[in-house]
Amino acid sequence: MLQEAIKAFEEAIGREYTLTSDAQLERYHYSTIPVLRVIDAVLLPNSVRDVQEIVKIANDFKISLYPISTGNNWGYGSANPVRGHNVIVDLSRMNRIIEVNRELAYAVIEPGVTQHQLYEYLHKHRTGLMMDPTGSGPSCSVLGNTVERGYGISPYGDHFAYVSGMEVVLANGEVLRTSFGHYENAKATHTFKWGVGPYLDGIFTQSNFGIVTKIGIWLMPEPEHFEACYFSCDNESDLGPLIDAVRWLLLNNVIRSSVNLVHRNRVLTMLSRYPWKEMSGKAPLDDEVSKSIARTKKVGAWNGVGALYGTKEEVRAAKKVIRRTLRGEVARLNFVSDKALLLLERFQGLFGLLLGMNIPEMLRVLKPSHGILRGKPSEVSLASPYWRAKKTPPAKDINPAKDNCGLIWFSPVVPMTRENAEEFISIIQPIFARHGFEPCITFTTVTPRAFDCTLPILYDKDDPDETKRANACYEELLSECMKAGYIPYRFGIQSMAELTGRKDVFWDVVERLKDALDPGGILSPGRYSR
Amino acid sequence: MLQEAIKAFEEAIGREYTLTSDAQLERYHYSTIPVLRVIDAVLLPNSVRDVQEIVKIANDFKISLYPISTGNNWGYGSANPVRGHNVIVDLSRMNRIIEVNRELAYAVIEPGVTQHQLYEYLHKHRTGLMMDPTGSGPSCSVLGNTVERGYGISPYGDHFAYVSGMEVVLANGEVLRTSFGHYENAKATHTFKWGVGPYLDGIFTQSNFGIVTKIGIWLMPEPEHFEACYFSCDNESDLGPLIDAVRWLLLNNVIRSSVNLVHRNRVLTMLSRYPWKEMSGKAPLDDEVSKSIARTKKVGAWNGVGALYGTKEEVRAAKKVIRRTLRGEVARLNFVSDKALLLLERFQGLFGLLLGMNIPEMLRVLKPSHGILRGKPSEVSLASPYWRAKKTPPAKDINPAKDNCGLIWFSPVVPMTRENAEEFISIIQPIFARHGFEPCITFTTVTPRAFDCTLPILYDKDDPDETKRANACYEELLSECMKAGYIPYRFGIQSMAELTGRKDVFWDVVERLKDALDPGGILSPGRYSR
Repeated sequence: MLQEAIKAFEEAIGREYTLTSDAQLERYHYSTIPVLRVIDAVLLPNSVRDVQEIVKIANDFKISLYPISTGNNWGYGSANPVRGHNVIVDLSRMNRIIEVNRELAYAVIEPGVTQHQLYEYLHKHRTGLMMDPTGSGPSCSVLGNTVERGYGISPYGDHFAYVSGMEVVLANGEVLRTSFGHYENAKATHTFKWGVGPYLDGIFTQSNFGIVTKIGIWLMPEPEHFEACYFSCDNESDLGPLIDAVRWLLLNNVIRSSVNLVHRNRVLTMLSRYPWKEMSGKAPLDDEVSKSIARTKKVGAWNGVGALYGTKEEVRAAKKVIRRTLRGEVARLNFVSDKALLLLERFQGLFGLLLGMNIPEMLRVLKPSHGILRGKPSEVSLASPYWRAKKTPPAKDINPAKDNCGLIWFSPVVPMTRENAEEFISIIQPIFARHGFEPCITFTTVTPRAFDCTLPILYDKDDPDETKRANACYEELLSECMKAGYIPYRFGIQSMAELTGRKDVFWDVVERLKDALDPGGILSPGRYSR
Repeated sequence: MLQEAIKAFEEAIGREYTLTSDAQLERYHYSTIPVLRVIDAVLLPNSVRDVQEIVKIANDFKISLYPISTGNNWGYGSANPVRGHNVIVDLSRMNRIIEVNRELAYAVIEPGVTQHQLYEYLHKHRTGLMMDPTGSGPSCSVLGNTVERGYGISPYGDHFAYVSGMEVVLANGEVLRTSFGHYENAKATHTFKWGVGPYLDGIFTQSNFGIVTKIGIWLMPEPEHFEACYFSCDNESDLGPLIDAVRWLLLNNVIRSSVNLVHRNRVLTMLSRYPWKEMSGKAPLDDEVSKSIARTKKVGAWNGVGALYGTKEEVRAAKKVIRRTLRGEVARLNFVSDKALLLLERFQGLFGLLLGMNIPEMLRVLKPSHGILRGKPSEVSLASPYWRAKKTPPAKDINPAKDNCGLIWFSPVVPMTRENAEEFISIIQPIFARHGFEPCITFTTVTPRAFDCTLPILYDKDDPDETKRANACYEELLSECMKAGYIPYRFGIQSMAELTGRKDVFWDVVERLKDALDPGGILSPGRYSR
């Protein structure tokens, strides 16, 4: 059956785009989480028509397809399917930027368009528009991250919220267009997301109901003026009041970017590698050692970053409000404009003396994070997976999956109150400790009312024992947090069954929708479904 | 069959809540559009359990149910079902405000909660939170408007965008909870709308897939400072450049409310009745007469309204930017704070002299529209349906459907460019003229990239000939605008077939979802479906 299907795929999209040899398939197995899936073949369609042909053949031969955009879903399974014996549909060749509308500030893109590619296009063509990059780096797919409901931290950070108009190849080979896109001559497809009638786009995110082949995404006009805002607290117990202040700033729309509250440990994973020497080869990281390294690097217990976008007078007004609101809650508060960053770079020594800061060290993280807030994708977060690995991240084109680094993402949603944050920390801290890891917490404000708490489990994947403990740590975190009501916003391929397994009307409905749209069950079996 | 079903309904929810007499059913027939539907009965459930019982009985006896929240869908069919011989499920008794969370700024409400009720609650309990009212007035349902994807004009105007967590009674009687609500102890149900897995909420808006019995809605904190912004142009041809300026202000987030650009004719319908005398009994309204009345009332050709919310310094900064941007594009630009409005009221004569304005006349519209921007529902728009009727709107509790006023809403979406707006006007103007009506255009910025153009067809419903013409006018508007690609964001019950009738994968998918969720087809047959 599979062999016949492969012959049919080869005829449909060409032999060179139907991969079956071990050497060709190898890179699709790369993963930062401890999984290994049998992949039967990889297909590389170049067009919607190719994708339509592929699903028709899959239906005929009862083949399970697993579409990926670029396959860099690091920490959640990368390109690996949820179940074994799938044929991967790699959409990376479909990487056209179909349209960029400067006047109405949107783009229409295909799945293969990477963050780097979109950034370069917007920049080179002087469109005056900026994208919102997610932290996963330049090589990742914009569409892939969006349909997985990933996020960035600029004001357009909630990626799916900024989609208007989708094109989806259904399991039966038909092409669905949403918003007004299914009406001839429709004018407002990419400017009004709801369209008319049931709003369907949502069911094609975090699901296996169709293959999304195009999306319209809204882009933000480059602001006249920009300033990043950095602040930090000295004590871990300062978090509570800080949360109250940040929530006020967001609910009152003073800050329109997300705010990241980053724990000391997490900053260290971005600045350096695990301090084996200081720890005499032991793990997890001791609090005292963490604090002492943080001191030398001028890192606070909690470190905040946000940004202001607007005209000069608007940014000035917002800064005043932020200063007033954070006064007393933070030990340090700095605003960094583009110009200030340039000066800081040029006169590192001088500023180092004046501010008592390690400026070169600071710039290593500051510059790329400034860039991300300004719409420029960066690899700054990609060094973390090398934290415990006995290898060094390359200077560029970092691919932690290829390098077999250990990273499992756990990313529950926590309401933005001090009580919730504190309860949440009290649940996860002992679990990390029990399994020999240090919690590296970031609280990211994904709405003005909720944090996504991204918790990487960073481990040495070349060490079988540590890998086992990492997995056990993840399992316990998931089960305890689900029990306490802190549910992850996104799941890795290893735990879909835990998500959907219980008696639950929600997942019953998902099953009924799946049967209606993909009765043969050919698309991504088990992905956010039973 | 129906008689047996009614007996079962009576047993389930009580005889007094099962209405069948003509007198009891009369008010459900009231409508501002020319339709008349046979209504078999009306059920008034009081709880989710009641609703579950009702759908079970409906399945047993193959009864078509038509749920309404308060039934004030004026201009789109009011409480009338799309097809005849439905049993209306009137959810107005389910009017509990389940929760108001001040810290996280949200409320959880049932379908019967009216705009007035929510406003009063927030106000009386000094919650420091404000709602976004839609223009349809105090008696309308917040939930009903939201699942119909209605909007208001404050920064939280896109009502469905601000929903987090739904409860839906399915056609099989099961209760679906979205966001994280289907997990026990879930903490973030009303603070993170996407939940995990396919985002389902959208398919329960503008659809007939389930009965929404609860929603979480986000509320805006009362701003420290507020100023409404009013501007106007003298010439109709000023619209193009004005659109460019407004789009810039919105895309750059200077104005976070919607902006309404209201044509002179539309303002006149809110200020007064049709000038039969000046027009010597003729219709449609002559341009010269319209202009001359507008002159005496100091109404411009295009009249803009928006608002600023923030701290004093932020509002001041935004005002500066608005002044700079609108300079040269508008003839008049005024900012009105709460304090200014109070002063204006107190010293009407003085200001009239100073500003050369008819202040009392102005206040009649200014005060309620100021209120709407501040989160207070108002009846200011409800007088328009009396424009051509030979009767006077009551001083309060206006119900244009009950008074048999003629209003058909036509509300297509137009991308926010001058070319689109001008093309759109060139299409609709001759159609209105041909049928003997004056176009009363409002362009509302429903996103920073698109207008919803709400066009009321105001007619005398007591005049059979005018009613016929109104209907023909609507039909031609709909067909011509659909052809040109300007699709309405929302449809009246009279034209669902035109929406879904053609060969269209989108409506095929909707049909498959409907079959999956409501195989008996008991819920709102024909509503946004075939």
